[in-house]
Amino acid sequence: MSVTLNKDQELIQEKLRQATAILNELEIDLWLTFVRESSLLPDPALELIYSSDVSWLSAFLISRSGNHTAIVGYYDADSVRTLKAYDQVIGYHHGLSEPLKAEIERLEPSRIAINYSQHDVAADGLTHGNYQTLLAYLDGSPFGQLLESSERLIGALRGRKTPSEVNRIRQAILVTERLFDEVEAFVRPGMTQRHVAEFVHNRIAALGLDFAWNKSYNPIVTCGPDSAIGHVSPGDTILEPGHTLHLDLGLKKNAYCSDLQRMWYVLDHSETEAPEEVQRAFDVVSGAIKAGEATLRPGVAGWRVDAAARQFVVDHGYPEYMHATGHLLGRTAHDGATILGPQWEKYAGICELPVEAGNVFTLELHVVIPGRGIMSLEEDVLVHADGVEYLSNPQTTLRYIGASDS
Amino acid sequence: MSVTLNKDQELIQEKLRQATAILNELEIDLWLTFVRESSLLPDPALELIYSSDVSWLSAFLISRSGNHTAIVGYYDADSVRTLKAYDQVIGYHHGLSEPLKAEIERLEPSRIAINYSQHDVAADGLTHGNYQTLLAYLDGSPFGQLLESSERLIGALRGRKTPSEVNRIRQAILVTERLFDEVEAFVRPGMTQRHVAEFVHNRIAALGLDFAWNKSYNPIVTCGPDSAIGHVSPGDTILEPGHTLHLDLGLKKNAYCSDLQRMWYVLDHSETEAPEEVQRAFDVVSGAIKAGEATLRPGVAGWRVDAAARQFVVDHGYPEYMHATGHLLGRTAHDGATILGPQWEKYAGICELPVEAGNVFTLELHVVIPGRGIMSLEEDVLVHADGVEYLSNPQTTLRYIGASDS
Repeated sequence: MSVTLNKDQELIQEKLRQATAILNELEIDLWLTFVRESSLLPDPALELIYSSDVSWLSAFLISRSGNHTAIVGYYDADSVRTLKAYDQVIGYHHGLSEPLKAEIERLEPSRIAINYSQHDVAADGLTHGNYQTLLAYLDGSPFGQLLESSERLIGALRGRKTPSEVNRIRQAILVTERLFDEVEAFVRPGMTQRHVAEFVHNRIAALGLDFAWNKSYNPIVTCGPDSAIGHVSPGDTILEPGHTLHLDLGLKKNAYCSDLQRMWYVLDHSETEAPEEVQRAFDVVSGAIKAGEATLRPGVAGWRVDAAARQFVVDHGYPEYMHATGHLLGRTAHDGATILGPQWEKYAGICELPVEAGNVFTLELHVVIPGRGIMSLEEDVLVHADGVEYLSNPQTTLRYIGASDS
Repeated sequence: MSVTLNKDQELIQEKLRQATAILNELEIDLWLTFVRESSLLPDPALELIYSSDVSWLSAFLISRSGNHTAIVGYYDADSVRTLKAYDQVIGYHHGLSEPLKAEIERLEPSRIAINYSQHDVAADGLTHGNYQTLLAYLDGSPFGQLLESSERLIGALRGRKTPSEVNRIRQAILVTERLFDEVEAFVRPGMTQRHVAEFVHNRIAALGLDFAWNKSYNPIVTCGPDSAIGHVSPGDTILEPGHTLHLDLGLKKNAYCSDLQRMWYVLDHSETEAPEEVQRAFDVVSGAIKAGEATLRPGVAGWRVDAAARQFVVDHGYPEYMHATGHLLGRTAHDGATILGPQWEKYAGICELPVEAGNVFTLELHVVIPGRGIMSLEEDVLVHADGVEYLSNPQTTLRYIGASDS
């Protein structure tokens, strides 16, 4: 069995120390992550505290004292032990209920946070069936009454990126930007969305990278005015002169993600620059991202950042876009918790959350140029106590693709 | 946008027709799959009825009339439409609650099955947070009272494999068996577990295959008596003459999985066959699998199949193994629902379920040979109305690896 910790294991130890500190900050005694068969039903929070999957019903108990226990199926126990992150690893044969009750009784918590959340998807790994099972296990003890959502804890733990997490995101962004340059050199008018996506997929495979979201719509390739807009697989629409080309691409490298959108205009034979309405759309989208960025500071509610960017677009005569202006970015592209989105039902409970230092957000929005296509940009930024740092090299000028015979 | 259906889309239409039939069999009016951000929180049942991921809170309503509706975020709607499997696709901007309530009112169901289960992990995709949200949406209507678990529906839909699903599993098994042959040609005494796993990983990458479970312990490589047993990453234990070599490998091809274990004995210089205790262990493990298989018939409860295999091992003087004798196999290696396992707490509610025709099960168990290593075999079988068909070529004789200089 290996005894040297690798970088993934070091990162888990780092996040566990951070979790202990956040438990103390929130005055929660115990954080219980209750999971089963995590390859089939992954809990997004589990990857912060364990480096593999569990097969049987399992309990990870993170205590504010810094003393942590994992109770897992017997055949998963050695894998947890190699992590050297848990003071106690219990491998059970028949059932979890007895060792779990005994361990909670030993810890005597007054507040127990468990892994569900109505609003934060990244804190909602507990299935409803497992919740019922947990209640049944704790029946007859006082602990069933003490359960509360761990959403604030998980939101802080996942959202406040450590320096090593930020470095990983930087690396993912760097390879994504290089890939955009390769796309620009490759693409010619007459190619279809599918051609462009296949080129990107081949490069991702050659580089040994992973996808930040489902590869069926990663990248999203929007060619001109006839492409569907949204999370749609690249189809047979042809890239034509006088149209815009838009890519939305997210890569995962060392378990952390990028999520970026870039814009090109395909010059017609007679053109040397984009028509005025295309350039104006670029300037408005770019300006709206800057307006959002100027509002993005620790303590500000997510919806206020969205409102600043949205108002900029509307003030310049475009209809508002029907999505959020940004989301957290990390182990996943949509990383849960605080959203920079309007106060619509679908963002309830997360658009009111405050921005924190250490958060990495996307800033993204689009307008439609009739007859030309969409204009949509997305940057990745890190929030510091006193301002915002771009982790991506923001696109400040429209990029061009020449006519096919130029 | 593509209009030709690919094989994955055809399979989804096939499973939706099957779902409609099962709803009628169970006299359930409506099957509601309630999901959000499925790349982060996948519902295992979603992949049976949709070929991609959803970002926002979504409802897939499968009706016993055969008329199906999907209500998803606006930017996911075109992707659902391309599937041509839903009569109605509603893309919402602000929130799901109003269109969902309107659609349920239109359908007037008396029984609504939703995607949670206390016992079947593959039917438990509904998170506890989303369950609370669903109840809040249905508050004030009679429908909140009508919700029940869809576990029997999902268990049947996932468990009763269609011919095209069985064909995919066959293909995954075939490439896995070829890979075992390649391993046998490659392996020599003196190699570590890690060497063997790296060889397998390189071949999987070259063949463009996916892993049936977390690659950190796929394959599991057990070398001799000093290896940890269970779901543990391959380490630095060296393969030595006189020891057993065990591989547990699962591959995924076209979205369906294999899960097989194979055994080798490493001959010492002086040996031409395995020592008696190694051969005997092989015969007992192999015989126990046959004893399980002889009991595996439609209508038999899972625990009875387990008991037949387990008793065979104990009758031959070995301690019982502390895991189930088999599980369903399909889109995932551990495919949920019926387990061929003993009546222990961790198998409660699933070891009592009856075997059905069309089920694909693993049959797997091990004994330990002191000083030599483990002896563990696993086969994949299809249940027919009148008996069992091996989808794998069962290992009926011990395989050998020669001494390094032979």
